Amino acid sequence: MNDEICLVKNYPLLSQIDDPKKLHSFSFEEQIALAKELREYMVSTVSLRGGHLAPSLGVVELTIALFSVLDLTNDRLVWDVGHQAYAHKILTGRFNEFPSLRTYGGISGFPRIAESEFDHFGVGHSSTSISAALGMAMARDLLGKESNVYAVIGDGSMTSGIAFEALNQAGAMGKRLIVVLNDNEMSISQNVGALSSFLSTKLSNPSLTRFKRNFEDVLRQIPKIGDSLAEYAKRGEDAFKTFFTPGILFEALDFTYVGPLDGHDTETLIQTFKQVNQLDKPVLVHVLTQKGRGYRPAEENPSDFHGVGAFDIETGEIYKKQTEILTYTEVFSQTLCELAENDMSIIAITAAMPEGTGTARFAKTFPKRFVDVGICEQHAVTFAAGLATQGFKPAIAIYSTFFQRAFDQILHDVCLQNLDVSFFLDRSGLVGEDGGTHHGAFDLSYFRLIPNIVLMAPKDEKELAEMIRLSFQHKGPTAVRYPRGLGFGVSLEDKSVSFVIGEGELLLEGEDLLVIAVGSLVYPALEAVQKSGKKSAVFNLRFVKPLPEKQLEELIPRFKAILLLEENAACGGMSAGILEYMVDNNLLENKKVYRQTLPDDFVEHGKQEELKRLVGLDVLSIQEKILTIYDFLTDEKK
Amino acid sequence: MNDEICLVKNYPLLSQIDDPKKLHSFSFEEQIALAKELREYMVSTVSLRGGHLAPSLGVVELTIALFSVLDLTNDRLVWDVGHQAYAHKILTGRFNEFPSLRTYGGISGFPRIAESEFDHFGVGHSSTSISAALGMAMARDLLGKESNVYAVIGDGSMTSGIAFEALNQAGAMGKRLIVVLNDNEMSISQNVGALSSFLSTKLSNPSLTRFKRNFEDVLRQIPKIGDSLAEYAKRGEDAFKTFFTPGILFEALDFTYVGPLDGHDTETLIQTFKQVNQLDKPVLVHVLTQKGRGYRPAEENPSDFHGVGAFDIETGEIYKKQTEILTYTEVFSQTLCELAENDMSIIAITAAMPEGTGTARFAKTFPKRFVDVGICEQHAVTFAAGLATQGFKPAIAIYSTFFQRAFDQILHDVCLQNLDVSFFLDRSGLVGEDGGTHHGAFDLSYFRLIPNIVLMAPKDEKELAEMIRLSFQHKGPTAVRYPRGLGFGVSLEDKSVSFVIGEGELLLEGEDLLVIAVGSLVYPALEAVQKSGKKSAVFNLRFVKPLPEKQLEELIPRFKAILLLEENAACGGMSAGILEYMVDNNLLENKKVYRQTLPDDFVEHGKQEELKRLVGLDVLSIQEKILTIYDFLTDEKK
Repeated sequence: MNDEICLVKNYPLLSQIDDPKKLHSFSFEEQIALAKELREYMVSTVSLRGGHLAPSLGVVELTIALFSVLDLTNDRLVWDVGHQAYAHKILTGRFNEFPSLRTYGGISGFPRIAESEFDHFGVGHSSTSISAALGMAMARDLLGKESNVYAVIGDGSMTSGIAFEALNQAGAMGKRLIVVLNDNEMSISQNVGALSSFLSTKLSNPSLTRFKRNFEDVLRQIPKIGDSLAEYAKRGEDAFKTFFTPGILFEALDFTYVGPLDGHDTETLIQTFKQVNQLDKPVLVHVLTQKGRGYRPAEENPSDFHGVGAFDIETGEIYKKQTEILTYTEVFSQTLCELAENDMSIIAITAAMPEGTGTARFAKTFPKRFVDVGICEQHAVTFAAGLATQGFKPAIAIYSTFFQRAFDQILHDVCLQNLDVSFFLDRSGLVGEDGGTHHGAFDLSYFRLIPNIVLMAPKDEKELAEMIRLSFQHKGPTAVRYPRGLGFGVSLEDKSVSFVIGEGELLLEGEDLLVIAVGSLVYPALEAVQKSGKKSAVFNLRFVKPLPEKQLEELIPRFKAILLLEENAACGGMSAGILEYMVDNNLLENKKVYRQTLPDDFVEHGKQEELKRLVGLDVLSIQEKILTIYDFLTDEKK
Repeated sequence: MNDEICLVKNYPLLSQIDDPKKLHSFSFEEQIALAKELREYMVSTVSLRGGHLAPSLGVVELTIALFSVLDLTNDRLVWDVGHQAYAHKILTGRFNEFPSLRTYGGISGFPRIAESEFDHFGVGHSSTSISAALGMAMARDLLGKESNVYAVIGDGSMTSGIAFEALNQAGAMGKRLIVVLNDNEMSISQNVGALSSFLSTKLSNPSLTRFKRNFEDVLRQIPKIGDSLAEYAKRGEDAFKTFFTPGILFEALDFTYVGPLDGHDTETLIQTFKQVNQLDKPVLVHVLTQKGRGYRPAEENPSDFHGVGAFDIETGEIYKKQTEILTYTEVFSQTLCELAENDMSIIAITAAMPEGTGTARFAKTFPKRFVDVGICEQHAVTFAAGLATQGFKPAIAIYSTFFQRAFDQILHDVCLQNLDVSFFLDRSGLVGEDGGTHHGAFDLSYFRLIPNIVLMAPKDEKELAEMIRLSFQHKGPTAVRYPRGLGFGVSLEDKSVSFVIGEGELLLEGEDLLVIAVGSLVYPALEAVQKSGKKSAVFNLRFVKPLPEKQLEELIPRFKAILLLEENAACGGMSAGILEYMVDNNLLENKKVYRQTLPDDFVEHGKQEELKRLVGLDVLSIQEKILTIYDFLTDEKK
């Protein structure tokens, strides 16, 4: 029995949905059965190759309800972040392709305009949905069309600044727009921020009673200029806040608030959506869902099953790595804690990623010196700048791709003031299955352009540990970028590894060709040179800013050709830095220069190794490049 | 009588304040007199050289009150944006230097840590104050110190995402922190957004009455799951919102709300600050102030006197430019309107800068197609992306330096999806008196690194007009950067100027040296070559991405040396792009390459011409550079 027939047999309802509008006529029983099939299909697929399971399980009924009401060829639907859109994908013509999820050439883990006409907006980074949907709503009105525009956003994403900017603008514009707040009381990790605790203040009868009893007091406490402060101060948490529905916040922003609703009650959701579609103004529908719903292991450990690797479908046991080799994240985690033991000025900050960035360990060990700001990269950086003005050494650990959100704060609040903030860029370079929205492909470029920063990339685990140490030693801003995944198994105990800022390392002497590599490509460069049988020199740059100028000044004149290797986009990265340096120091003349970088394009999703091969940054490609360069050099000699 | 004696005579109180703590013992009468002196000093100084007058006039009493209560050697005070901090500067040891405001080597228009121990945080870009202050508050608590930490933020700045992120985090952390909301009901231009209209909903007796009468109705309307939607919908603007104090929003974020207070009533402010300093939690003090207060022309036209040039102190008449030559902003404004006349898909978006960016004219002509999103650059870009998915062509006009805030949205929401959004980067390059926080020094670098973008810079007004036209013709994202200030007086009527994307212009044929210049440096390069008496060729690059590859491929091999000129930071800009191109196309060999850029550093404030001289980008410096290159070339021939 081939795969397709098997799919039809296992998923009799799902396999019949060639048009999402079919859901408009589904009976209650069919909706229940459909939800069951969707969950089974998602769990079995993700169990094999990993993916964002818990978020997608949580919105099965929500997706069915939306599809039962909306006509996605006319209406518009924007999923925030998009890691909850698996049901959406399966129901919009990608049922058969779903098993190719997150594989190279297969369907993406996130909605993408290029992938389907039903993916109305490409997402990946958090909190963009309301802005995009508001643009769509304005477009609709300008065109005089009738359609419903929905944004579905989680409670975690709601804490990010851009979501607030968009809510504020949407409220003011008064456009017909429906924001569904998917409130699962946790985003990726546990939610943080006042908004979070506010949202979890659910209505209950006792509070209503107290509300009523206190009302006259409250009224008397409304301040008038000239009232004594004592009266003002009495208000606050004891008077107002706990008595209101979460809606008040959104009402304040000119949204009509509806909810909270049971996000797993399809019928109520459908009725609600049908009715709010009649309203001619911004509406916020507050929906309560359970992450991981319907698969017990995910219900019990929604954080583990947020973005999960392959697992045993029966037991829910997540397959662990079968190696003693540490990931770069683990090395960071361990080293940071070791250093913080003896340096009370170190503070760790992350943005909703304590597990992903390895700062969870720090949080447990030094709870008073740890802050998770939520999905607020901008605030994280300026908050750190404030700490640094008072003599602390904040360490901000965020994924490379998400640091893009804080570019202005890094430049304007930290580097312009030359403050002592350390940036740790996890998952730099190609991250693999999460694809184009998540590759850390640009950090060497967008950090390097900023004055005052020290920008480093380690060749292995031990160098990472050393660079972390240097970060806290150095007065001024520093950034260390390191890849997703395992190191090379290098021991952290080796005490011989020690270097200063701006000091690279000549790993291999040679002649004719000098290979300058940085970070993840140093070992591959070394291996490629050795396999090529040529006598190239290999230099581990370590510092993209400041460059190891003294060493380069001595080295470069000794070679005919130079090959620059970086796992970073083609524009403005390490290789640009070396070229600028050579121009500014008259080292360029009579030199052949070559380079291999990521393309000047967004790289697809797939396994890290596959993608490296694709862009020519695997050992074999580098080896071929080296041989080609020697061919050139030989041709010239002839 | 020398200047200093004159200052003492005119400002008897002010000139005696050698320590800001002296204000602690000022009498009510002295406070009044001090406010008067501060206003006179600010008005007379700014009337001569321009500056941010209206914001600083609005907070005179607020500053006096803060200084009367705080000990700035121990307490911490962060002014948001900082253009309201003139009184702060005058009162903290810079009374004598104040007339050097915004001049090269003189005091900055914004607080700077390097300038004074009383400037606790450097500012310039909006909405960073709460984040920074929260960091300071956490530092204080970790150190076990006792001190008060204040952030003073305007109502306009409060709409920006990072401010919300910080409020949310501050509320959750519960740290002792005082945020003073300086509510003048307009930020730079008229305030926008729902928060704004919410803040202006002042308490009045009629609304209180209605509140009471409606209370039982409201209670009945609190939703329970299963209630009919009709009941939910009745709530909203008619029930809750208009009856509450603005405080409810902040209470929802776990702040204790105090206010609104009369921001010109020094005594009330002092009493309030003394009392809130006793509270052990986050407090928001809502203060109402009048922009331009105390100088009638500024009171009547606060927008004109926000950032103002020199003016007649008696009449308030702002000196106009004595020329028919248009500014680049005016050319943009005019061209955009002309194109929008015939292209209904063009939508103009700005971020609180309709006057500054010249989009005010568009707003008047095409009000339905104009959106001012407030100080929300992130949202502006993703909102535009949403519009573009529906077939519109949004044009976003923002100052170059402020686009940094939207870097991730430009990359992730627009360029990754290759959407049809046009970015107009006003005030690129050196902006002059606003200094390091405001120079558009990095845009060629941080835009160029992004795949899919077309990045242009016009040599003059006519080319700007042509590039605007190209922006809307091109399918995909585009960015045009143009300088602050006047063009060259080139007529816009010249129909002969026409070019396609990726087409540069050989302005001057020559030999030996090829000068490649972009944007603002094309005419200076031409002039420098002509003055040098040498026969260099001059190429107007026009496109930093994609480069005019065909032309460069033909041109470069014909010259011994190349000089690259850009008014952009040293790392990753146009010159890096040309070098990368030369490497990737084997054009580098046997070529001497030189470049002149802005330094890899933050440039100070001063007149644009002064700064250009300082960084070596004026005609004379370029001429000298050219002569030096010819000296090298001659030396080699010998």
